[in-house]
Amino acid sequence: MSKIPVGVLGATGMVGQMYISLLSNHPWFEVTYVAASLRSAGKSYAQAVEGRRHLDGSAAGKSGIGDSVGKLIVEDANDLSKALDAQKAGRCSFVFSALEMEKDQIKSLEEAYAAAGIPVVSNASAHRWTADAAMLIAEVNHHHTDLIPIQRKNRGWDKGFIVVKPNCSIQSYTTPLWALLQKGYEIKRLVVSTMQAVSGAGYPGVPSWDIIDNLVPYIGGEEEKSEMEPLKILGSINQEGVLVNASEPKISAHCNRVPVSDGHTACVSLEFGAKKPSIEEVKKIWSEFKSLPQEQHFPSAPERPIIVREEANRPQPRKDRDADKAMAVTVGRIRPCTVFDIRFVGLSHNTIRGAAGGGILSAELLKHKGFI
Amino acid sequence: MSKIPVGVLGATGMVGQMYISLLSNHPWFEVTYVAASLRSAGKSYAQAVEGRRHLDGSAAGKSGIGDSVGKLIVEDANDLSKALDAQKAGRCSFVFSALEMEKDQIKSLEEAYAAAGIPVVSNASAHRWTADAAMLIAEVNHHHTDLIPIQRKNRGWDKGFIVVKPNCSIQSYTTPLWALLQKGYEIKRLVVSTMQAVSGAGYPGVPSWDIIDNLVPYIGGEEEKSEMEPLKILGSINQEGVLVNASEPKISAHCNRVPVSDGHTACVSLEFGAKKPSIEEVKKIWSEFKSLPQEQHFPSAPERPIIVREEANRPQPRKDRDADKAMAVTVGRIRPCTVFDIRFVGLSHNTIRGAAGGGILSAELLKHKGFI
Amino acid sequence: MSKIPVGVLGATGMVGQMYISLLSNHPWFEVTYVAASLRSAGKSYAQAVEGRRHLDGSAAGKSGIGDSVGKLIVEDANDLSKALDAQKAGRCSFVFSALEMEKDQIKSLEEAYAAAGIPVVSNASAHRWTADAAMLIAEVNHHHTDLIPIQRKNRGWDKGFIVVKPNCSIQSYTTPLWALLQKGYEIKRLVVSTMQAVSGAGYPGVPSWDIIDNLVPYIGGEEEKSEMEPLKILGSINQEGVLVNASEPKISAHCNRVPVSDGHTACVSLEFGAKKPSIEEVKKIWSEFKSLPQEQHFPSAPERPIIVREEANRPQPRKDRDADKAMAVTVGRIRPCTVFDIRFVGLSHNTIRGAAGGGILSAELLKHKGFI
Amino acid sequence: MSKIPVGVLGATGMVGQMYISLLSNHPWFEVTYVAASLRSAGKSYAQAVEGRRHLDGSAAGKSGIGDSVGKLIVEDANDLSKALDAQKAGRCSFVFSALEMEKDQIKSLEEAYAAAGIPVVSNASAHRWTADAAMLIAEVNHHHTDLIPIQRKNRGWDKGFIVVKPNCSIQSYTTPLWALLQKGYEIKRLVVSTMQAVSGAGYPGVPSWDIIDNLVPYIGGEEEKSEMEPLKILGSINQEGVLVNASEPKISAHCNRVPVSDGHTACVSLEFGAKKPSIEEVKKIWSEFKSLPQEQHFPSAPERPIIVREEANRPQPRKDRDADKAMAVTVGRIRPCTVFDIRFVGLSHNTIRGAAGGGILSAELLKHKGFI
Repeated sequence: MSKIPVGVLGATGMVGQMYISLLSNHPWFEVTYVAASLRSAGKSYAQAVEGRRHLDGSAAGKSGIGDSVGKLIVEDANDLSKALDAQKAGRCSFVFSALEMEKDQIKSLEEAYAAAGIPVVSNASAHRWTADAAMLIAEVNHHHTDLIPIQRKNRGWDKGFIVVKPNCSIQSYTTPLWALLQKGYEIKRLVVSTMQAVSGAGYPGVPSWDIIDNLVPYIGGEEEKSEMEPLKILGSINQEGVLVNASEPKISAHCNRVPVSDGHTACVSLEFGAKKPSIEEVKKIWSEFKSLPQEQHFPSAPERPIIVREEANRPQPRKDRDADKAMAVTVGRIRPCTVFDIRFVGLSHNTIRGAAGGGILSAELLKHKGFI
Repeated sequence: MSKIPVGVLGATGMVGQMYISLLSNHPWFEVTYVAASLRSAGKSYAQAVEGRRHLDGSAAGKSGIGDSVGKLIVEDANDLSKALDAQKAGRCSFVFSALEMEKDQIKSLEEAYAAAGIPVVSNASAHRWTADAAMLIAEVNHHHTDLIPIQRKNRGWDKGFIVVKPNCSIQSYTTPLWALLQKGYEIKRLVVSTMQAVSGAGYPGVPSWDIIDNLVPYIGGEEEKSEMEPLKILGSINQEGVLVNASEPKISAHCNRVPVSDGHTACVSLEFGAKKPSIEEVKKIWSEFKSLPQEQHFPSAPERPIIVREEANRPQPRKDRDADKAMAVTVGRIRPCTVFDIRFVGLSHNTIRGAAGGGILSAELLKHKGFI
Repeated sequence: MSKIPVGVLGATGMVGQMYISLLSNHPWFEVTYVAASLRSAGKSYAQAVEGRRHLDGSAAGKSGIGDSVGKLIVEDANDLSKALDAQKAGRCSFVFSALEMEKDQIKSLEEAYAAAGIPVVSNASAHRWTADAAMLIAEVNHHHTDLIPIQRKNRGWDKGFIVVKPNCSIQSYTTPLWALLQKGYEIKRLVVSTMQAVSGAGYPGVPSWDIIDNLVPYIGGEEEKSEMEPLKILGSINQEGVLVNASEPKISAHCNRVPVSDGHTACVSLEFGAKKPSIEEVKKIWSEFKSLPQEQHFPSAPERPIIVREEANRPQPRKDRDADKAMAVTVGRIRPCTVFDIRFVGLSHNTIRGAAGGGILSAELLKHKGFI
Repeated sequence: MSKIPVGVLGATGMVGQMYISLLSNHPWFEVTYVAASLRSAGKSYAQAVEGRRHLDGSAAGKSGIGDSVGKLIVEDANDLSKALDAQKAGRCSFVFSALEMEKDQIKSLEEAYAAAGIPVVSNASAHRWTADAAMLIAEVNHHHTDLIPIQRKNRGWDKGFIVVKPNCSIQSYTTPLWALLQKGYEIKRLVVSTMQAVSGAGYPGVPSWDIIDNLVPYIGGEEEKSEMEPLKILGSINQEGVLVNASEPKISAHCNRVPVSDGHTACVSLEFGAKKPSIEEVKKIWSEFKSLPQEQHFPSAPERPIIVREEANRPQPRKDRDADKAMAVTVGRIRPCTVFDIRFVGLSHNTIRGAAGGGILSAELLKHKGFI
């Protein structure tokens, strides 16, 4: 099988570089088109990221830029005609968007790509609350790809579409919630406190002066995202083809930035509905949870989406973030809650599972379903 | 007024050194007796801590050992006769206990001092759940000193007694809770997630391998303390002279160790009873809160026990832990909670307000009330 | 004595804020004029730094902005007429320059102030290699103030002048070198490796992604400064009124950025000329070293410019940077060198001794000598 | 080919765990015997390290304990008879020693193993200065295996022998020195300043209180090792079969502990003899350097022992320590020195290249030469 040629928009930023790195030996996709800001346009990709390569030798063992990608000429992401030329030339079947611009600019630019027939798998928050854009976690709401034909119809788009990836802060608890929900346990409310890595703020992101021997108990906009996005992901598409958000659980999020490079940790207290699982049942449900990406053996799917650790002091970001290609959520400290029903700690790698890796898994889902 | 001569048990450990440092220019108390393990006994205090002085030049500007303390000969803390000799010689009116031993050993040793007529103000957890031992936060339950005559009667003690200081993890939210309670706002439940400094584990404490680019979502025994101790502090003494713990709030605590040297941070979501203050009212109550230590101008009392910050991103440990001699609790991010009623972030210096400084403030209260 | 009214240019940046903080209770100087970029102009100083105050509660116990400074209206630093108005109104006798602009802009702007009659004590590097501008470390080359009349004559300036402060990286070894030189020990060569705090890069400065669990063995331009600036400071003014740089020592500097908030550490190996002091002699010279600021009891002068520590593992940045108001250099590990003659470790607080505090000490020297 | 059965002494410590991890899929060796302190003896290896596993998910992608090793019963390392039983049973052809005991104990215990016929590849420092024990860096002094027959003869040993690995602090500059020496460039002197990771101190090692927002400019014994060990490695075996240490270069080492988890960095200034290479020549020599492990394709050999980076700000520990299976030395900032001839920065992974990985590479060398 020849590989599907893909483009990366915003290819020189932190998440863009992670896409390049993770796609370097991908069995289905091959990066054949890169675009960024006008400043980088015209340079080879290797030149464009010289002096600002963030990932060498780290990031779950991935490193370096393949020669073929290094030689690609960076195009101006704002110049859609370049992408269309590439598409015609068979070098750009769809794009990953890791654009770093004003939200409104991203919104209209991603729409322009989709309207022109280039599917967009986006990391940006711009379209997360666009009603007919699916916000995907491949193990949780893979059926939300049903929104794609609806979106095309709504917009009069032919081949293009837009799907998005949720915020990195919710990855460490949304899949565990879903695993419980689908076993019939309603979840009414939860209080979550996150301790988030600095890479979540991009680059240059958090000044080191603000984080050495310190933490910052605030991340602009993050608590709202952490409280609302799970409700869209857990929503269902009604007969009119409208995605109706879930009404529960009510979530209260406290989001903190801590001196950790990669890996977001979440402390969760949650309340079930009338039917309450035992602690052992919760562990069993999470340990055994598998979904479409596992069943279909998508290349980026972790063998187990949720890894349950029994040690008292796990998960920990440096020690667990890279579990199963940095694509698994690791949970631990599953115990009764003195205020609600259960408590636990969840952890996921924010720039892999929570960003580029999650986006690639979504694309694998889209390919499986024939959308790309 | 000549100063009251005091002893420090466990004077060479991290908290013990902090006592020596904070008492170096105290207007009421003077360190004239130091005791530690047998290993240090017989050495001058300066010799005993050589190569393991933890505080030089840091800790809210306090530094160094005064000459007079440096020359004191360290006695064996297990040898009560030494303390009694010092007491007779007018060199030890009462002791601060910062002992680091097995809990049972501390328990009986502190009792032995008290029985022999030497009052003990303890930092250790050994007697926190001893029914007739007051667990004091001077601004909150100063009236719990009423337990002292009861304790003496119970035990047949003459001049001695034992009072204790609560765990450092609860300091950043218990005083704020109390300020609301005494204005008539019941608090039913709260979920708190703490991010605690490594100095809370003593020395050597947390291995650096475990905390660089990492955090540990577990501290042995800390969650139980964080959930239970506030109930004793908020308890009341009934007509039989028995301290009855408060039955509310129900607390669910998640305790985390983070790469911060000093300063414990707590993210709190809380639920009031039927009567609910507005956010503005909460801010006003906290800003204006003063108690006996402020009214009586105790030397170690912060001018304001609770400092309210309006910035979106405060409090932060490195920037706020030293506020008002490191004795104030700084709160911020006071906002409505989507699950309960309000949310906020509290911060206090764990080895000063939460340990040695808090102990000294308790001793100032005891002197004010004539117990020492 | 009424205080001398001073201005701070670049008052809203990291070093500017440090000036405001350190001058808040200064016995000789009072901040009565603040200027910054056009963006801040017109706001009160309190407003201008809201949300970007870097120093609360830290920095050697200094904190906060006094009410009087908070209410000052920030002027546009580029608009010299504002400063002249202030000067006429008796609100700006001289200025501290903590400007953050292009080097050339700073150079001409500082010249404009001086030409207009406003003396400039500058933190910027712009005029460090201006031949007739003294680069002062008050304990080392206080006699270089003799360049001021020469500079005025050269430039046709009346009351104004420019003096500068050297780079923060050289503070931890230049004073020790000078102490040895003035006892008659020639120093031929030295190799120095620095480990520098992130605050040296200003704000936002070093991205946290680059420094967590990491170090960066490169700081642009820093090695050149570290090698050359000591030679100017150690230079002498010849009969023609020209400052002739010292020709020795030859310095090889390796400059590294490490995950430390404040405090630059330097590991130095040095070679003497024919006459070589013993290790004990070196310690004695450094311990006993005093200079004009000590003799004249300048308010910001440390009691001892050089503190010698005997412990094997000192100095350390977090434990020693605040020594003596953060104005002392702490040295330790003084021992024979296997390649040259002696080795040692030096440490100084980069934003206090190495920046704002050093600038204030220079101003105290200038006042003592009658230049301001 | 069936694999050679190997034992690990001190298998439960930090370096011991790294051996287990790195050997988990080794093509030549298989861990079939594990020994540790009496405390662990009798437990399964999985049990013995439960709650003190240091490496999960980190360390160059290696993780976990294979099932077969996890089930091995830990023996008492002091009980040689157990190892001999294992040897007879074909489960222990030689041992890696990662013992953590008093130096004298290690010394005699390793001798006992060797005398009994079990070859020892040691990580401990005990035998580094034993005259007839080779201290190996496989790319540098592979010919020092010639000491093995001499050692056997000296001691009357039959099959057993002892070889050792040098200290982790010298790995980042000794191979580069050798590459230059073998091209005919004498090196007379060098000054090196190291910034060493906390994992070099083992576990629990450095208390986090001592390293957060801090560094420690002292590591006991490390400077002496850093100055002396290269001279043994660069030594030659004379006609009497005696290893004569090199007399040059003279080394002055400053060793610092910094807040980095893994990866030692060294800043080096060095002086050549009369014949001096250009900077370009140095880069070429290092880039092209290969040695026996590369030529013979040893499984743990890095493709290039020395990786030359051209970026101004590399190498950096978090970004470069894992280069080429964490077995390469990365060098950068190769430039002229203002005091000596050239300067550079070297970096290597201290617990892989500098400990367990280096030991395994030595064992591969020994197998290649037929000693095991």
